[in-house]
Amino acid sequence: MKRTKIKEILASEAYDTDVVVCGWVRTRRGSKQVAFIALNDGSTIHNLQVVADIDGIGEEALRNVTTGACLRVNGRLVRSQGKGQTVEVQAASIEVLGPADPTTYPLQKKGHSMEFLREIAHLRPRTNTFGAVLRIRHHMAMAIHTFFHQKGFFYLHTPIITASDAEGAGQMFQVTTLDVSNPPRRQDGSVDYDADFFGRRSSLTVSGQLEGELGAMGIGEIYTFGPTFRAENSNTPRHLAEFWMIEPEMAFYEIEDNMDLAEEFIKYCVRWALDHCADDLHFLNDMFDKELIARLESILQAPFVRLAYGEGIRILEEAVAGGTRFEFPVYWGADLAAEHERFLVEQHFKRPVILTDYPKEIKAFYMKQNDDGRTVRAMDVLFPKIGEIIGGSEREADFDRLQTRIEELHIPMKDMWWYLDTRRFGACPHSGFGLGFERLLLFVTGMANIRDVIPFPRTPKNAEF
Amino acid sequence: MKRTKIKEILASEAYDTDVVVCGWVRTRRGSKQVAFIALNDGSTIHNLQVVADIDGIGEEALRNVTTGACLRVNGRLVRSQGKGQTVEVQAASIEVLGPADPTTYPLQKKGHSMEFLREIAHLRPRTNTFGAVLRIRHHMAMAIHTFFHQKGFFYLHTPIITASDAEGAGQMFQVTTLDVSNPPRRQDGSVDYDADFFGRRSSLTVSGQLEGELGAMGIGEIYTFGPTFRAENSNTPRHLAEFWMIEPEMAFYEIEDNMDLAEEFIKYCVRWALDHCADDLHFLNDMFDKELIARLESILQAPFVRLAYGEGIRILEEAVAGGTRFEFPVYWGADLAAEHERFLVEQHFKRPVILTDYPKEIKAFYMKQNDDGRTVRAMDVLFPKIGEIIGGSEREADFDRLQTRIEELHIPMKDMWWYLDTRRFGACPHSGFGLGFERLLLFVTGMANIRDVIPFPRTPKNAEF
Repeated sequence: MKRTKIKEILASEAYDTDVVVCGWVRTRRGSKQVAFIALNDGSTIHNLQVVADIDGIGEEALRNVTTGACLRVNGRLVRSQGKGQTVEVQAASIEVLGPADPTTYPLQKKGHSMEFLREIAHLRPRTNTFGAVLRIRHHMAMAIHTFFHQKGFFYLHTPIITASDAEGAGQMFQVTTLDVSNPPRRQDGSVDYDADFFGRRSSLTVSGQLEGELGAMGIGEIYTFGPTFRAENSNTPRHLAEFWMIEPEMAFYEIEDNMDLAEEFIKYCVRWALDHCADDLHFLNDMFDKELIARLESILQAPFVRLAYGEGIRILEEAVAGGTRFEFPVYWGADLAAEHERFLVEQHFKRPVILTDYPKEIKAFYMKQNDDGRTVRAMDVLFPKIGEIIGGSEREADFDRLQTRIEELHIPMKDMWWYLDTRRFGACPHSGFGLGFERLLLFVTGMANIRDVIPFPRTPKNAEF
Repeated sequence: MKRTKIKEILASEAYDTDVVVCGWVRTRRGSKQVAFIALNDGSTIHNLQVVADIDGIGEEALRNVTTGACLRVNGRLVRSQGKGQTVEVQAASIEVLGPADPTTYPLQKKGHSMEFLREIAHLRPRTNTFGAVLRIRHHMAMAIHTFFHQKGFFYLHTPIITASDAEGAGQMFQVTTLDVSNPPRRQDGSVDYDADFFGRRSSLTVSGQLEGELGAMGIGEIYTFGPTFRAENSNTPRHLAEFWMIEPEMAFYEIEDNMDLAEEFIKYCVRWALDHCADDLHFLNDMFDKELIARLESILQAPFVRLAYGEGIRILEEAVAGGTRFEFPVYWGADLAAEHERFLVEQHFKRPVILTDYPKEIKAFYMKQNDDGRTVRAMDVLFPKIGEIIGGSEREADFDRLQTRIEELHIPMKDMWWYLDTRRFGACPHSGFGLGFERLLLFVTGMANIRDVIPFPRTPKNAEF
């Protein structure tokens, strides 16, 4: 007989039928006559109560039924007499598939710190919290694919290993097959990268955007969803060395279309979470962040504010004049700090803000230049609690302007010929944006540390598992 | 007015309505009075015919309407008089968004070799062939996510950068932030990896399976879908240094459940391609592989053969005795070569074969050992034309047997403590398999070279774009 998942059992009304359930013991309590076993199989945050009559099952069979043990239970689905559940399983037989020695198993029923759980990241999917986070993570990925698929976008796998550092978005990890202890050298003593695997120095990508644009200029609308890497020595709750990005790129989209898409997209994801992850969200709301669900719902209730950067600066300057204190200075040309972004979103407008038309000096070379000569058609989506969640722009489609900007920034033209070709041949207005997947998850789960929304975080000095 | 995608226009019956279409010119032909422009926007393999009356539009406006140019066309949707299409657009105005100089644009209408197109991989999404391949690639990814989502599996992101080489599946790329030209050294002269980003030597993953098992042992059923890497110096039509893998891992699955899942899964993907990519498949069938669609349909028509390795060897030995010549020898214990796999599938059974119970010496350490002491519960799915498309097994759940096998193979135990913990605490029968995404795409598209089913292939000496 096939096992039934606990999620299905708990939603079932097939009382008095025989079932097989498998899962891991969360807790065991009871008396000399009866054991109550809370069993979880990861399909849901909720446990199934298994009731075992000790005379019937036998003490020996129950000896290894301890927290963390894995069981296969044959039994009968019945209405539950206890509170907190509507059904339970009366065990007919219990097989311990794998015991978990109570003296060494690290996940006893008492609560554990998030820091401790990071050290046992190989076991934390067995906890309520990480089960919930991983299920929500899956659902957000599914929401993203479904959203773009329904719109006729194509999922594009941009390369992970790259020979160019064109975006200049951050420090890169080098990828090599050379013997680092004794690399081959040229006559001048420099490392001979001709002998490396790719015949040149290569790195891990910091963004798939530029290659994404190549796709959009052929098949119209694409999105990437892949890992990206930053070799920054940042030990903060917001930084990972390895994280996942979603980067849509669209031909024939101007900045307004881009803003419309970004707003629709993120609302779609939040709506999906509320619709499909209610149990897990309620758990996280109760355990970690009492405002979580209210905050998610608030995102859906009104259009995002759309505001030029210059207007944003004016509002912040007025706030300073009115007595608001910021750590970092406010002036036209300044890159906004999280405190500024959160002031605009949480204090001033009390809803998400899309900030546009940033000074070109603080934005990337590929953004479309406005006719004022000093701003670009950037758009950042700013969210409560986490600040910037999306960064995007209309892309510069004009060959000469783009080439000039590349020269001004001393980006090696030899790395850019293929990118410039999209403006040389059949150019068109086009736009795109990037969403850090773990940023989205911080917002949707309410977790405080980005290391707790990815299964196996990579950070300075940490590549365990 | 918003543009309408060409895919929608071609399916429309809204005759005599005004439309805006954008796209790239594939061809232009006509007379002094009228120009016929074949326009494609990547939403479909089919072009839209735009009819431009030269007197009305003006010769000047049409001057830059050449192959590769990007247009925005305002016009009227009408029934087509010509053959090959049911609708066309009578242009009222044409704007050339971006010209493509006919003297330098590399993609003129004549056919190009696949080798040449690889050199301009940044432009090849604009060709019929790569448009078709990229759309099918998207659809296969969507099929995969949808299949697992509907079954209650969770998408798990296993790490890309790893400090362990546990699977031993192949040569690895090293990832470092050390100065390769002058790395810090310990007193004994060896490279001081304490100073590297992760505080230890680290590499790009060759498989997410082991971490996938950690997920399955907590939330039950997971699948990975991410990039994997092999630093093998293989210049063949079947090898990439960077490719994408799908690796489901399932708690409570024995080998038979695993085979059922693999067969259902791959049939689902093929069915999806036939249902959703008919136009692109017909194009590829006509252009590259006249048996493509028939081969895809044949997969769905019968259950896969399930056969023990030993039986497979016996059939091959009989074939040899009967006069069949193979390049590589056939004997119990031999790793099967593609010629053997294809003989079983294409000549003997004439349908896909799932081969099980391989000699343990030719399979990985984590596969469940059979009681005969010499075979493991491996299962490889063998397909016509491409050979092995899926490799999997029931996993060894017994702590002692697993530990012994790790010792026998001299795998460093210090890298394996976390993997062994899943057998130490709450173990259960579990299984999984791996599918190379580009292998699947070779089968579904009929393309002959794996470099032509991924947007930007990474191979020895090639990391361009």
